[in-house]
Amino acid sequence: MKSVVLASGDLAGRPKRNLKLQIEYDGSQYSGWQIQNHQRSPEARRRTKKTIQQVLEKTLQEILQQKIKVIVSGRTDAGVHALAQVVNFYTISKIPLERLQLAVNSLLPHDIVVTKIEDVPESFHSRFSAKSKIYRYIILNRKYSSALLKNTVFFFPHTLNVGLMQKEARVLLGRHDFKCFQTSEKKEKNTVRIIKKISIRKNKDFINIEIEANGFLYNMVRNIVGTLIEIGRGKLPPNSMKKILVSKNRIYAGPIVPSQGLCLIKVKY
Amino acid sequence: MKSVVLASGDLAGRPKRNLKLQIEYDGSQYSGWQIQNHQRSPEARRRTKKTIQQVLEKTLQEILQQKIKVIVSGRTDAGVHALAQVVNFYTISKIPLERLQLAVNSLLPHDIVVTKIEDVPESFHSRFSAKSKIYRYIILNRKYSSALLKNTVFFFPHTLNVGLMQKEARVLLGRHDFKCFQTSEKKEKNTVRIIKKISIRKNKDFINIEIEANGFLYNMVRNIVGTLIEIGRGKLPPNSMKKILVSKNRIYAGPIVPSQGLCLIKVKY
Repeated sequence: MKSVVLASGDLAGRPKRNLKLQIEYDGSQYSGWQIQNHQRSPEARRRTKKTIQQVLEKTLQEILQQKIKVIVSGRTDAGVHALAQVVNFYTISKIPLERLQLAVNSLLPHDIVVTKIEDVPESFHSRFSAKSKIYRYIILNRKYSSALLKNTVFFFPHTLNVGLMQKEARVLLGRHDFKCFQTSEKKEKNTVRIIKKISIRKNKDFINIEIEANGFLYNMVRNIVGTLIEIGRGKLPPNSMKKILVSKNRIYAGPIVPSQGLCLIKVKY
Repeated sequence: MKSVVLASGDLAGRPKRNLKLQIEYDGSQYSGWQIQNHQRSPEARRRTKKTIQQVLEKTLQEILQQKIKVIVSGRTDAGVHALAQVVNFYTISKIPLERLQLAVNSLLPHDIVVTKIEDVPESFHSRFSAKSKIYRYIILNRKYSSALLKNTVFFFPHTLNVGLMQKEARVLLGRHDFKCFQTSEKKEKNTVRIIKKISIRKNKDFINIEIEANGFLYNMVRNIVGTLIEIGRGKLPPNSMKKILVSKNRIYAGPIVPSQGLCLIKVKY
């Protein structure tokens, strides 16, 4: 008991810092940001690789010599990447920001990189302070795949009508109940979100789909993209997106697309 | 003896095709296009991974049921990539081009992709018919590396004077003896080559260096880029490139840069 009081006295004596980190990662070798509860079957546990959170916290603890618990803007799934994920954590360390960034990056594996560190007010919370997040999904749409981009795009060889995809995507803009795009094993109570922006752009053989929303349901982007692909292939009748959305039923939406095409590109505060 | 005559009679009965393949590969997991002779030390053999040639020939043989020996435009080293490597080979198979491409790509690992196949005249030779080749080297020039591009760029954190690199690179244009940029364990007799084009472009944090030449000495691009980096950092006095070139001596040039930043992007015929 005495040592606890001493330690707490120690902590009280030093100003507590809230550090915000921006992180880029290649999710290929990880089972996501954190293990999801529904993935904890005995079989899943046997296959489980490391999580990005585990690796980051271990590295920070090694440098700061203190138990670290990072708060993330939102989890990403196995195989999903991030250009600018955001986390924050509290520390009593006085280490200069630049030195901390160098130290962390020299200890982290090459597929996780801290791209920015800053001191933020104590009230900043990576998840609750976030106003919106932007995800990008890349489809490689040609007859043959890409050796160099195999881990960052979804190769889809059949012809897609991009104009039609753009047109039908417009009904997703605004405040809606997106329950139909939530993977069914997850039971989020409030499934209403606001999609602020959707852009679908064709650039040579690539189709880039960017979606900005105030929040995302589990697998929401990948289920929307899967539905857009069904539309682009002509597998669904006109105005299907509207009907799927109002159905609030996952079975009417298209199949989920693979994780490697997905990347969290920005969190806005 | 009789069976040999029969087989040769079989071959004579069918027209021989010369097929030209364009190939994209991620070289990260291979010990190059082909094992170089000087790499055959006992220690090197223990570390040796597969070669791209091995994997490609094995796949073609499996499909065409015939011994295949491909001719390549030029070997690439361990870790070096290609967007459009070119090979050709002879076959008696009548398989349609599109079906062959689909079959090959479905059997090849994801880091090798055949992006084009065509019938070419019997005289076409990937190496001897080539007029020039273009290599690209990418330097990521900022304070922190990239998780998503770790296998395709060379991360260099120190400030580089790109204008100076561009200026000094100009002396390499044209016909010169490039012996100073040949890695010394290789003893090519004729070290004269013609560099047709060099472009050094800065795009945000990336510096792209593209070199087109009628041929390249062993490690020539990586040794030129290493020298350009020494110049860009201010480690060499003005007009160094000219002095290094006329010295014809490897010891005056800069250090070799890592293979992962290098990519063969085009072979011109």
